[in-house]
Amino acid sequence: MQTIVLRQWGQADILKVEEAPGPAPQSLGADEVLLDVHYSGINFADIIMRLGFYQDAPPRPFTPGYEVSGIIQAVGRDVTNVKVGDEVFAGTFFGGYASQVKLPSWQVIPRPSHLTLKESAGLTVAFLTANSALFGMGRVRAGDKVMIDCATGGVGTMALELLKGMGVEVLGLTSSAGKKDFIRSFGARAMTHEEFYADPKEKDYDMILNSQGGSTLKKHLSKLAPTGRVVCLGVAEGITGKRNPIALLKTVFAMWNLSVLKLFDMNSGLFGLNALKLMENTEWIKARMGDFKLIEEKKIRPVIGATFKASEAAQAHKMIETRQARGKVLLSWKE
Amino acid sequence: MQTIVLRQWGQADILKVEEAPGPAPQSLGADEVLLDVHYSGINFADIIMRLGFYQDAPPRPFTPGYEVSGIIQAVGRDVTNVKVGDEVFAGTFFGGYASQVKLPSWQVIPRPSHLTLKESAGLTVAFLTANSALFGMGRVRAGDKVMIDCATGGVGTMALELLKGMGVEVLGLTSSAGKKDFIRSFGARAMTHEEFYADPKEKDYDMILNSQGGSTLKKHLSKLAPTGRVVCLGVAEGITGKRNPIALLKTVFAMWNLSVLKLFDMNSGLFGLNALKLMENTEWIKARMGDFKLIEEKKIRPVIGATFKASEAAQAHKMIETRQARGKVLLSWKE
Repeated sequence: MQTIVLRQWGQADILKVEEAPGPAPQSLGADEVLLDVHYSGINFADIIMRLGFYQDAPPRPFTPGYEVSGIIQAVGRDVTNVKVGDEVFAGTFFGGYASQVKLPSWQVIPRPSHLTLKESAGLTVAFLTANSALFGMGRVRAGDKVMIDCATGGVGTMALELLKGMGVEVLGLTSSAGKKDFIRSFGARAMTHEEFYADPKEKDYDMILNSQGGSTLKKHLSKLAPTGRVVCLGVAEGITGKRNPIALLKTVFAMWNLSVLKLFDMNSGLFGLNALKLMENTEWIKARMGDFKLIEEKKIRPVIGATFKASEAAQAHKMIETRQARGKVLLSWKE
Repeated sequence: MQTIVLRQWGQADILKVEEAPGPAPQSLGADEVLLDVHYSGINFADIIMRLGFYQDAPPRPFTPGYEVSGIIQAVGRDVTNVKVGDEVFAGTFFGGYASQVKLPSWQVIPRPSHLTLKESAGLTVAFLTANSALFGMGRVRAGDKVMIDCATGGVGTMALELLKGMGVEVLGLTSSAGKKDFIRSFGARAMTHEEFYADPKEKDYDMILNSQGGSTLKKHLSKLAPTGRVVCLGVAEGITGKRNPIALLKTVFAMWNLSVLKLFDMNSGLFGLNALKLMENTEWIKARMGDFKLIEEKKIRPVIGATFKASEAAQAHKMIETRQARGKVLLSWKE
C-alpha cells in the first residue's frame, strides 16, 4: 500500500508518499474491516501536528489522518453492518493518509445516498466538530443569534449546513470580501472580520463559533448577549504557514491571560473544543454515531474545496495554511 | 419609613434599622408604583457587599437589598398592570432593605396564586439566577445529568424545583449529611461534598451548578462528560464569616490560575454568572419578565429557611454566613 509517514516535524514539503506492506486480510479481527481508501480528508489539526505543535501526537514515525472514504475490501467474521464492496466513510484517528486502513466495524458508516464517495471523505471530523460545537456544547435553539467566525472552512460550512432551517439568525465571517456570496448561499448573513469588529451594532450573539483563539476570544466574548457562549475550536491565529513558535506562543499567552474571572463580568461562557481529544474517547464517539443520520436526513452536502493526488499532499497542506481553501481539502489515492 | 443603610463595610453587627423620610406618593412617576414592603429577601451577594468585596457596589451610604414583597400603596397615572391593594413581589436592584420602595411598574409581578406574600419575597433573585444558570447558560434538556453543589440554599432549591419532571437526573450536594433527606424530597439524589469528590463513579455530568468557585472549579470540570459545562455562581469558598481578605484572595487566585486552555484539554465549558450584573441590564431583564410565569405554571414553592425581624438583620446575615440556612432567609417589616 501507499502511505504518508511523519518521521520529523517541519514544512509541508516533508510530506512524501512511501510504499509499505498493507494489512493482510487474514489478520483482520472478528469485528474489523479492511478498507480500500479512495480519499483521505485533511484537517487543520494535521498541520499543527506536522509542525510539531500538537502535544498529544503519537511518537514518530506515524501516519497522520483522521478520516477517509473508500470501498470495503474484507470483513471479519462477526461484521454485520457492512459487506465487501460497500462504499463507506469513516473516522480513523490517525492512519488516514494511506491507501488501505483496518478499522473496527462500528467506525464505518455507509456512504449517504445523496453524496459521492469523494463528498463523503471529509464528513467525519467536520460533522463531529460542528455537531459537538453547535448542539453538544452551544445547544443552539430556534431564535438564537449565531456567529461563525471562519464560515468558509470545512467546519464552518458544515455549521452553516446544520443551522439551515432551524430558525436561527446566522452571521458568517470571512477574511476575504469575495467569499461573502458563498456564505450567503447558505442563507446566512456575511461580513468580513474587519467589518464585524468595527460595527458596534454587531452584538448580543447567543453563540459564537471561534476558530481563531488567541486575542479574538476577548473580542468575541464582548459580542455576546447575557448568558451567551463562545465555543473555541483551536488556535489558528498562531499558525502563520511557517514553523513560528513566537506566533503560537503569543496566541497561547493571549488565551492564558484571559482569566475565567472575566466570564463573571460578562455573564457568559467559554467552551474549548478539541475534536481530536473527543475522538480519543471511544465510548463517547460510539454513543454519537447515531448523530450521523443528520447528514442523510438534512441532505447535508459538504463543500469540497480541492482534491490533490496523494503525491501532492504538500500542496494540499500549503493551501490550507495559506487560507486559500474554500471547503474541504482531500487527498486522492486513485487519481 | 424604616431602612437599613450601609455606611461602612464590616461585620454583620453594623446592620441597624434607621428612620428615614419615605417616598411621597405625589413624587411618583407616571409609570411608577409605591410599595408597602412586608418582606425583604437576603442574598449572599448582600454579605459580600457588606464586607466591602463587591467592586460594583454603589457609593456609600446606600441601602442594600435586591428583592421584596408587599402591597401596592400608590400607582402613577399610566400604571395598568397593578392597582392599589394588590399583593406583589419585585426585584429592586438595591434599596430592598426598607419598609417602602418606589419602582417602575414593569418590575412588579402579582403574587402567584399558590404562594403567600412571605413565600414570594425571595423569588426574584433565586428564580432569575437558577433560570439563567439552568436554561439561559446551561440549556439543560431531558436526558441530562445535572449536579447542584449547594442544593439546600435559595438558588439550589429553586434549581431543584425547576428541574423536577424534566427527565433530568439530578444530584444535590450538601455539606451536612443531615440535609440529604431534604434534597431527596425534590426527587433528586443526595450526597455530601466529601462523598461526591471521593467517588470516581461520580462523573460524566452534562451540567454542574457551582456556587463555591475557587479550587472547586477544576474539580467540577473533571466531573463533566465531554461537551459538558460548569456554571459558576460566585465565590462562596472565600467567604468565611469574617472579613478575611486572605481567604478571598486565595479563592480569586485559584480561579485566576485556571487558564481557559484547560477547557480544551477537557472539551468542556465554563460560565460565570453574576446575577447582580444581569439585574443591571434593564433591557435584558425586561425581556425575561415573561419567564416568571414558570413559577405559577410549575407551582414552584420556594423554601423559606428563616424569617427575622428587620431589627434582627445582623442575625439573619450571620445565619447565611455560617451556612446554617436551609432555603431563603427573609427580613420582615411587619412582625
